[in-house]
Parts: sequence; C-alpha cells; structure tokens
Amino acid sequence: MNIRFFNARILTMEDGKEIIEGQLFVREKRILFVGTDDEARSYCDNHPDEVLKWDREIDCHGNLLMPGFKNAHTHSAMTLMRSKADDLPLQDWLNNQIFPIEAKMTAEDIYHLSKIAIMEYLTSGITAAFEMYLTPYSVADSFRDCGMRCVQTSCVNNFSQSVELLEDYYNDLNGRDEYNSFIIGVHAEYTCSKELLTKVSELTHKYKAPFWAHIQETESELMECVERYGMSPIQFFDSLGLFDYGGGGYHVVWTNEHDREIMKNRGLYAVTNPGSNCKLASGIAPIKEYLEKGIPVAIGTDGPASNNCLDMFREMFLVTGLAKIKNMDASSVDAMEVLKMATVNGAHAMGLNDADTLSEGKLADIIMLDLSQPNMQPINNIPKNIVYSGSKSNVLMTMIGGIIRYENGQFNIGVEPSEVYSKAEEISKRLYS
Amino acid sequence: MNIRFFNARILTMEDGKEIIEGQLFVREKRILFVGTDDEARSYCDNHPDEVLKWDREIDCHGNLLMPGFKNAHTHSAMTLMRSKADDLPLQDWLNNQIFPIEAKMTAEDIYHLSKIAIMEYLTSGITAAFEMYLTPYSVADSFRDCGMRCVQTSCVNNFSQSVELLEDYYNDLNGRDEYNSFIIGVHAEYTCSKELLTKVSELTHKYKAPFWAHIQETESELMECVERYGMSPIQFFDSLGLFDYGGGGYHVVWTNEHDREIMKNRGLYAVTNPGSNCKLASGIAPIKEYLEKGIPVAIGTDGPASNNCLDMFREMFLVTGLAKIKNMDASSVDAMEVLKMATVNGAHAMGLNDADTLSEGKLADIIMLDLSQPNMQPINNIPKNIVYSGSKSNVLMTMIGGIIRYENGQFNIGVEPSEVYSKAEEISKRLYS
Repeated sequence: MNIRFFNARILTMEDGKEIIEGQLFVREKRILFVGTDDEARSYCDNHPDEVLKWDREIDCHGNLLMPGFKNAHTHSAMTLMRSKADDLPLQDWLNNQIFPIEAKMTAEDIYHLSKIAIMEYLTSGITAAFEMYLTPYSVADSFRDCGMRCVQTSCVNNFSQSVELLEDYYNDLNGRDEYNSFIIGVHAEYTCSKELLTKVSELTHKYKAPFWAHIQETESELMECVERYGMSPIQFFDSLGLFDYGGGGYHVVWTNEHDREIMKNRGLYAVTNPGSNCKLASGIAPIKEYLEKGIPVAIGTDGPASNNCLDMFREMFLVTGLAKIKNMDASSVDAMEVLKMATVNGAHAMGLNDADTLSEGKLADIIMLDLSQPNMQPINNIPKNIVYSGSKSNVLMTMIGGIIRYENGQFNIGVEPSEVYSKAEEISKRLYS
Repeated sequence: MNIRFFNARILTMEDGKEIIEGQLFVREKRILFVGTDDEARSYCDNHPDEVLKWDREIDCHGNLLMPGFKNAHTHSAMTLMRSKADDLPLQDWLNNQIFPIEAKMTAEDIYHLSKIAIMEYLTSGITAAFEMYLTPYSVADSFRDCGMRCVQTSCVNNFSQSVELLEDYYNDLNGRDEYNSFIIGVHAEYTCSKELLTKVSELTHKYKAPFWAHIQETESELMECVERYGMSPIQFFDSLGLFDYGGGGYHVVWTNEHDREIMKNRGLYAVTNPGSNCKLASGIAPIKEYLEKGIPVAIGTDGPASNNCLDMFREMFLVTGLAKIKNMDASSVDAMEVLKMATVNGAHAMGLNDADTLSEGKLADIIMLDLSQPNMQPINNIPKNIVYSGSKSNVLMTMIGGIIRYENGQFNIGVEPSEVYSKAEEISKRLYS
C-alpha cells in the first residue's frame, strides 16, 4: 500500500526537530517522505517515478502523526489473570495466584491470550512489545498473525526453559519473519542459579549479544542477592560478564550509585514499569538519577496481571508523576523526555533502530492522535498535552510496517475481536475450573 | 424523555449489592426501576400506568450501567493554562504562571473556558463537579447551559471575593436551577486572615452549613500555619468553629493523627487529588489512614493546569496505586473502595444525596461503560477491571438528570465543540499576548 497523509501535524521525534505541519508519504513498509506542503510539492516534482499512485490519501484534519509507542516490557498472555489477583501482597499474588495457573497454560492458550493484549496495545498506539513469556514460538505466532512487532527475550530460570532452548529461540526467531526478533535474557537473578547464568553468559559472548532480565524490582530481591553473593543483581550479572555486550533491566527500582555506574559504563537501558511498581507496591524507580547519569530509560506496561492496564498514556504520566513526587520537585523529568522514552529509547532498547523516528527510510510504525478532543484543548503545547492530559481515547490510528492495524476503533488483525474474547473465556473457564 | 435500558449489567453501588443483569428505566429526570428481566416484567405488569411509552429503548449489549463519577474538586476554567505551565516548581507555577493570567480573565472568559472542561468530564463519565473558581455566576451559567451538575464553593481570600459576596452566591445559586448548588468555603488558610475566617464561621453558623477549603495540600502550607497559629489548618479552622456543621478539605495530604481525629469527629470528607499531588510534587495523601479511621474519601481531578487531565479513570488508579506504594502494601485500598469514593462518597461530599446510586427514585445520572474493548477482557471482575484497567475510552454514554449529554463520542451540550475550541483559542491569544 502507498499512503499519503496530509493536513497533518508531525512530531518526528528526531532530536531538536519542531512539529512539522505538512505531509507524510508511506511506500509499502517504509516512510518515503516527511515534510511541509511546499517540500511535498517539490519532492513530487523531483521524484516523479517514486511518487506512486496512492492507494489511500488520508486527511488528518490537523491531527498528530508520531512514531508508535514501544512497550518495552510486558507478558502479554497474562490477560488471563487480569483482575483475578489484585489487592494482594506480592508473594501471595505470585505463589498462590500466578504460578499455579501458569503451570496449566498451553502454548496454544498463550497464542490466543496474547491477542487480547495485542488488541489493547493497538488501542493505545503501541506498535511493538518487548515480551517475555513461557512459550516464545506461540507468542511469536500470535504477534505475526496480528501483524504487530514483537521483540522477545527468554524467561529461562531454574524451573522452566533451558539455555539450549534459549539458543534455539535466538536462532529460530531472529529473521523468521518481519514482525519477530529475539534477545538473550533470563527471568531474574533470584530464579536462576549461578551455573545457569554462567552458561547464558557464554551465549552472550558466542553471539556478542546484549543481555536482559528482571532486575532489582523489589527491595527483597536486592537484599537476597546481596546476602547470597555479597553484591546486587546488576553487580553480580556484570561480574559474570553478562553485560559485556550491553542490554538492560526491567523495573530496576532499587539501584544505588554503584549499580548506576555499571549501567552507564555498559550502556545498559533501564526499562521502567511504574503502573506495575505501584500496583504491586514495589517502589518508585530513580528515573531522575538515571537521566542525570545519562542512562537511557524506556517504558513498559509490564503484564496485565500486574498493572493491569496496557496503556502507554497512563505509564507516561506515571513516569513523570512518580519522579516528581519521589524527588518532591515538580520540575523533574519533563514531558519531552518522557515521550522520548516511550518512542525512541524503547525502539533502541529493543533493537528496533529502524522504527524509532518518523524519518525517510524508517519503518512506517506510525500513530495518529486526535487533537480535537477536549483533553487536548487548547492546543497550547502538544508534547505536554500528550504526556499530561493525553489518553488512549486520542488514538485514531495505529500503523505497523505500513499496514493500518487499528483505525477509529476497528481492528485489522486477521481475527474478529469477539472470537478472541470467546476463546479467552473458554480458556479461563478451563484453567480456573 | 422515558428511556428503557435493556441487556445491561448494572452496578448500582448500593452497599453489598452484586452486579445485576437486567434492565433500568428512566422516567424524565429520575430512575423508575432497576432489576432483572423477570423483575422488569413483573414491574411492568403491576404498574401499567407508570410504564410509559418509551421515547427510546437502548440495547446495552451486556455493557455496564453505573452511577456517574463525581469529580469532587476542580477549577474548570483553568483549561486556559493547560500545558502552559508544566514541569515547574510550585511557587514559580503559581506566582509567575497562574496568578498573572487569572488576573486578566473575565467572567465571560471563564464561562467559555469551563465548557472545555465540561466536555472532558463527560468523556470520562463524570456527571457532577465540585468547583471552585473566581466567578461563580458565570461558572454556574456554563454548567447549566451544558446540562451538567455543578456544586460550587467560594475561593474567597484576602485578595478576591468577600464574605458578603459569598453569602450572595450561597443564596442566589442554591435553588436557582436544577444543575447548580453552592456550599460555603474559602480558598485556603494561607490566603485568608483570621478575621476573614471568623466572619465565614459566623456564616456557617447562620446557615448551619458545612465548610470547605484547600487544606494541607503541601508541607510548607502546614508548617507556615503551625508557625502562625501553633496548629495545623484543620485544627485552626476547627478552633474557629468552621467545622461545626461538617464539610471537608481538598487535597489533605499532610495530616497527622490529631487532624484525623478532628476529621472523624466532625464528619469531614477528605477529597484526594492524586494526579495533581504528583504533578505539583505535593506528596501522597494518607488514604489508608483515612479509611482505617472511617473518614470518607472522595476523588477530584483538581484543575487542568495542575493535573492536567480531567479523567476519573486515571485518578482512580492513582488513588490505589499511590496508597499501595506509600504503604508498601499491595493490598492497600481495594478497587471497590475506590469506586465508592468516585461515586457515592463524592455525591455525599457534594450534597448530591439524590445522585449517589442507581436506585429507584434517584436522579438518572448514569454512565455506560463498554466491556467489549480489550482492556476489559476477559470479564473476570468488573469493579477491578474499571479501576485497574479501565479507561475513559470505555465511556459509551454519560446521562445527567435523564438527558444523554455524551454518547459514542458525540456531545449534546447546546454548542458545537469547534465553537468551544475556537472561543478558547481566541481567549488564549488575547490573554497571553
């Protein structure tokens, strides 16, 4: 498909670039052109061969085009447990509500349950998810069949998956299709033996690959590791060479200056999950400290049993709102910084360097936000409107790789919503019986 | 209008009542009947005269009817300053960004600017606002003309309004029309002299009326009062007899046991504003402590320059999310408790005792929430879904006093959205020039 967007405001997320009023052309999977009306005219004059017959011309009515959000940490199929295990202490939540049900889930269940999350991502303008769950192949199938980008990492630990499987996932899922890729990772320090981690470290060296894990989400996770090895998980992972090719951590709530020094030196990403960290009472991540240190921060929703909402707008407000309250400083972590986390930084953390900004040649992972709803009025400052008063109800369109997957409340994911829901109900009835 | 809703799930918010699957009848401004299909049939058989010809029969397709949310603290016309004054320290925000612009606003400006907020409330299922702003008559006109409920209090202080004006507002606005009412209040302790407050106290005694104010929003507000009078604002107000007929406080972030003892004994309400308290770095209110003490909590968005979103869904998540993190206890403040705050408690705090639950004879202030969007799936637990994964994008309909003011994205407020927006742009250009 070749699509021309016109009458658009365009937030490219290129560094220092102001919002453009103009046009954006998509040719097949990629962005062909971004610029003002004058530039568009001259582009068309100078590239008569490239400017194809448009399959569709979309009048944006002054609404905003921007890069799709990157959900940099999630467990999609946990839609099953949404609202089944709330208002509980963390250990009770995990041991009595989550683990027993997960033990009963099949790869096929996970395929179907992931689709509810994929639909929810689309409604919130999310075009890619950094996923960790039990059955990477069926997760990959689910994302591919819906036409959504998925970067997976393994949740290998002492009790499930294995380093051999991890290597298979790595080789099989990278390059398998245009929507999926795979990054080396483990569940967390507290679920992995030193022996297992050492083998994973060998793998990162074999492939010169980055390494990811849940890291220092809770204070008790940190303290147990200190007791076990005399150092924090970040320090321990680093001592095993796991970060020799970079990577990052999910949550990273409980870090000290020494940890952050390692993160900075290794070029690690901090993926923050503020909704989950509130709901599970894990704590508030030191976002301001990460920024001051030059550690790039990305944003994830975490899974729908922990958050329970897969909504980047809520997360964006929480990132800055919690930072302001943690530092008792209303000027902490400004809106543009948050937008960068939710788009460019997420893309880079996930290895999606081709889906970070709206620029010529980049993948057409684009969303349109409605500025004519009351929460965006008056249009005093668009980036601040998005972060502070924006809502998923402003998402008019979500395009991934040049294909519109969500538009005006309708999904284009190869399956009817009602079918996805009834499948989930069926699975829920079976597993909770 | 007489309207029959059928195929509905109904969360009445009556104490201890389960969700009903059935029907709800509205006759003119009020609820005529709520019950199952069987009960509906027998109601119709037994009340042939009461059951009128329906002007409209609405198939809810299994979606949820519940009482409209009550926004228990806001300053609607501050839509003008939305996204104009963010990421700033509080004193800079107030003294350099807010006050100078407010000094230039006319009553007519406030009339128009309030309408953007009213529209935003409707999109979030809010049916009534507890308002405090500079020109109560034009605010009242704005809400009346849009058909939305407004309970106002005065922002009288040493620099604007007066006790004489306050009494006029009280007498003029109570009973003036079906949408407006007025409650005695002042801006805050730190902007009011003891002499002024003493005169207001006389007014509360004259009318045997409750009293409201911004109370203990920031630590510095508290400490300055302690320095001035040797006690907290709550203790100081109480010493002046201001709470002899009840009332409550907005924000109430910084309270101690002594304050809460007074709140309990005087039957005061705590209105919490978590979005604003984050964004302005004011702190986290002790919600768990209020609940344990039996102090009723209601929820407000605060104004659009402080939050900046007028969205009850975001506030509801924040109330419980921040409580969980403040107490480091994931079981703090459960979802049903939060829903009660956002509906029943808000209504009672605002004196809207007739608009609290979906019960026969109550005002038809009703919203419909879409359960067929992915964020509400699977339908494991509806109250938890609303609070933890719900969004304003789930609001299909907002009805106030039997009239549908918002439905499927369209407004019915006597004016076109584009007219509201262009009026606001015009005002913004004039005041910021």
